[in-house]
Amino acid sequence: MKLSEIASIIGAEFSGEDLDITGMNALKDATTTDISFVANSKYIKDIQETNAGAIIVDASVVEHVPPSCVALVVDSAYWSMAELTKYFAPLVEDDSLPEAVVGEGSRVSSKAELANGARIGKNCTIMAHVYVGSNAQIGDNTILYPSVTVYRDCTIGSDCIIHANTAIGSDGFGFATNKLGEHKKIYQNGNVVIEDDVEIGSNVSVDRAVFGSTLIKKGVRIDNLVQVGHNCEIGEYSVMVSQSGIAGSSKIGRNVVLGGQTAIAGHLEVAPFTTFAARSGVTKSIKESGLTFSGFPLMQHKQWLKLQAKLAKLIK
Amino acid sequence: MKLSEIASIIGAEFSGEDLDITGMNALKDATTTDISFVANSKYIKDIQETNAGAIIVDASVVEHVPPSCVALVVDSAYWSMAELTKYFAPLVEDDSLPEAVVGEGSRVSSKAELANGARIGKNCTIMAHVYVGSNAQIGDNTILYPSVTVYRDCTIGSDCIIHANTAIGSDGFGFATNKLGEHKKIYQNGNVVIEDDVEIGSNVSVDRAVFGSTLIKKGVRIDNLVQVGHNCEIGEYSVMVSQSGIAGSSKIGRNVVLGGQTAIAGHLEVAPFTTFAARSGVTKSIKESGLTFSGFPLMQHKQWLKLQAKLAKLIK
Amino acid sequence: MKLSEIASIIGAEFSGEDLDITGMNALKDATTTDISFVANSKYIKDIQETNAGAIIVDASVVEHVPPSCVALVVDSAYWSMAELTKYFAPLVEDDSLPEAVVGEGSRVSSKAELANGARIGKNCTIMAHVYVGSNAQIGDNTILYPSVTVYRDCTIGSDCIIHANTAIGSDGFGFATNKLGEHKKIYQNGNVVIEDDVEIGSNVSVDRAVFGSTLIKKGVRIDNLVQVGHNCEIGEYSVMVSQSGIAGSSKIGRNVVLGGQTAIAGHLEVAPFTTFAARSGVTKSIKESGLTFSGFPLMQHKQWLKLQAKLAKLIK
Repeated sequence: MKLSEIASIIGAEFSGEDLDITGMNALKDATTTDISFVANSKYIKDIQETNAGAIIVDASVVEHVPPSCVALVVDSAYWSMAELTKYFAPLVEDDSLPEAVVGEGSRVSSKAELANGARIGKNCTIMAHVYVGSNAQIGDNTILYPSVTVYRDCTIGSDCIIHANTAIGSDGFGFATNKLGEHKKIYQNGNVVIEDDVEIGSNVSVDRAVFGSTLIKKGVRIDNLVQVGHNCEIGEYSVMVSQSGIAGSSKIGRNVVLGGQTAIAGHLEVAPFTTFAARSGVTKSIKESGLTFSGFPLMQHKQWLKLQAKLAKLIK
Repeated sequence: MKLSEIASIIGAEFSGEDLDITGMNALKDATTTDISFVANSKYIKDIQETNAGAIIVDASVVEHVPPSCVALVVDSAYWSMAELTKYFAPLVEDDSLPEAVVGEGSRVSSKAELANGARIGKNCTIMAHVYVGSNAQIGDNTILYPSVTVYRDCTIGSDCIIHANTAIGSDGFGFATNKLGEHKKIYQNGNVVIEDDVEIGSNVSVDRAVFGSTLIKKGVRIDNLVQVGHNCEIGEYSVMVSQSGIAGSSKIGRNVVLGGQTAIAGHLEVAPFTTFAARSGVTKSIKESGLTFSGFPLMQHKQWLKLQAKLAKLIK
Repeated sequence: MKLSEIASIIGAEFSGEDLDITGMNALKDATTTDISFVANSKYIKDIQETNAGAIIVDASVVEHVPPSCVALVVDSAYWSMAELTKYFAPLVEDDSLPEAVVGEGSRVSSKAELANGARIGKNCTIMAHVYVGSNAQIGDNTILYPSVTVYRDCTIGSDCIIHANTAIGSDGFGFATNKLGEHKKIYQNGNVVIEDDVEIGSNVSVDRAVFGSTLIKKGVRIDNLVQVGHNCEIGEYSVMVSQSGIAGSSKIGRNVVLGGQTAIAGHLEVAPFTTFAARSGVTKSIKESGLTFSGFPLMQHKQWLKLQAKLAKLIK
């Protein structure tokens, strides 16, 4: 899309070269044909480093944009970014792609639906009422149980098991809100990448990334009714027990354990080999490895036990 | 159904005119051809106002029933009401209705199922393994992702997006229990109404009303794995984050935010522009607008922060 | 399978009779043609009572194995047991079984899938996109709403209602973990048994047992988005409100009520007629019947109210 068209869509002032823009991306991941945005002053420092060809900014930020990058100035960069994501959203299904390809030895139910552009590896079992979207890719020996939905562009590795009624790649929970309290959808144009040897339970939701990928690494075990927000990264062999959830953009190291009903807020990092007892509420990053936490607010498990002893005394 | 037949089904004493009864409804919504019930003494005051043609009551309540309304006297009005709902329940699917109608420009997967009487608007995308029930109605430009189930009689507006494996219109959790601890189902003969520009995530459950409608108003945003109980009303542009839930008959004003894993009990009202931090537990109505709450039991967020500071001291 | 083959798979030392082993089972349920295991020293006392033909043990346990039982000695009995479960896992679908049988008066959607060996009773309603697996059995008058998945070998009684997108019989969350933090799946070769007159909401997960059955007894009511772990037993007429969950192997008596978002840890027992208020966290068995509990850590409800009053004072 021409930069001039983009400017017209979002009602931006625009001067400079009329670039061809092929995508939207975060500041740090953008290339010269991408457009990016700054909607929060804490990201101003990252503007100098970006390779983005153009950038959507509020008037207050425009002075920080280097000459190498065309600035589109708007009232609300976040709202305009949301507006624009719609124009970069791929079709829900792309019939122009070639028919789905299925590897040798795979068993695909006649009641499954493989969209054009889907690719299934060897010796897979794709059961009834499964949906695999355009450009989605499944490795070898993987089982998709009935009514699993794999949205377009998502990839699942080899030797994986996904249980019934689980959704891989539903849209992340993203929208801009204006002063009237109205919302505008941020189209989630990224995907989900699930590596090899991952097992995911039934009725799980793994959201696709807004840009880039939600990543579930090798050997992860996810129980039933778990939520994985957009752009999360779950480290190797980590374990999420039933009804736990991780909000957007958090990164969990390897062999982390989330007890049942545990919740991790967005944009955090959790060190490897951390254990969260059931129903922990995590709102800060964990930097030291190998510790065990409990409670909400979160504290080390031994502190939590101490607190409960104090409270028990309080009642007497 | 003749009132005499109803009396016979529930084993009620019956004298007076043998009316034709066409439905069951709550006291305040009932019309002259409806039958209603009083199962809780706190609703006795509403009997005078009702337009119901007949009413199921315990012996202790019969004196409050006005002469305009025929009283059916039973041992347990709640149990008898439950018994009777079965006889007013529509067929799960109604083949006698005309074939489903699909508007111009809509794309319906050959692997979707549209029951007789379903109506799909223009330019919709109805993906594989979707089910749209009898008399259910979908507006224009709406996307139903794979394995979405829309039960009969529910309506979804225009410009909505419903993500994979979500159930719209499953039965509310209603039953009567007798002294032996046995349960009798209260058939949920109402529906769900979702207005325009609503987005709902994957693996969400929105229950149909027992009578009347569960209502999700314009612009609402619901994340994954959320529960909306029967007869709830969610105000315009309100936001429910993942794994939150609302029990039956609660009314939430506009632009209310429920943080992740927040729960709201039944029969409450929440003022507009209220924010609940993650994992709030709401057991009382909120009357003042614009405040932020946390915790369980719920308190204003600043109080909660104060409490946590006190508890932190307690451990030292 | 010959015991010598098993020994070879798990790399065990083996001497004694080369038995024919037809299954794997827990110590107390194993018969003479089963192999069992001891992975936890607290089960050593049960070894004397077992009828298992063979038993997988660590070197430290071998001295407790009676002469009637062949011991296979390995480095990690739990890991070896996990390894072996794969060899006893039935096919995901078994085409060699006879075609599904449907009872008189049942209505089965042409878009439902009944695997070979499935049996549906009389007057059932099996809606679009339902899956009923090999050897699964449904009683009479039962309704399976769209996109319900019933895994192979599970049984559902008569007069049951299962709402949309619910999974019955997905794998329990079982795996062994070695010193490198890698996981090995424990195949869940048991099933789920649901008795008569049970209603289950939408987006519910009921996991199959590792050996034996997960059991949901007569008259139980389960709301939406509920988790039932493997090998649980839910007593007659018990009630699980939305977003509650029970971890593996817990046994709940009759007429127990779990309030919304309540969680019960694994391997516990709960006395009949116990009530848990919303969001209770249960980590110990409840032995006395008829009490009401709240909170996490759990306490009697009146204690919890007292604690909240004390905490409210603390803030002032």
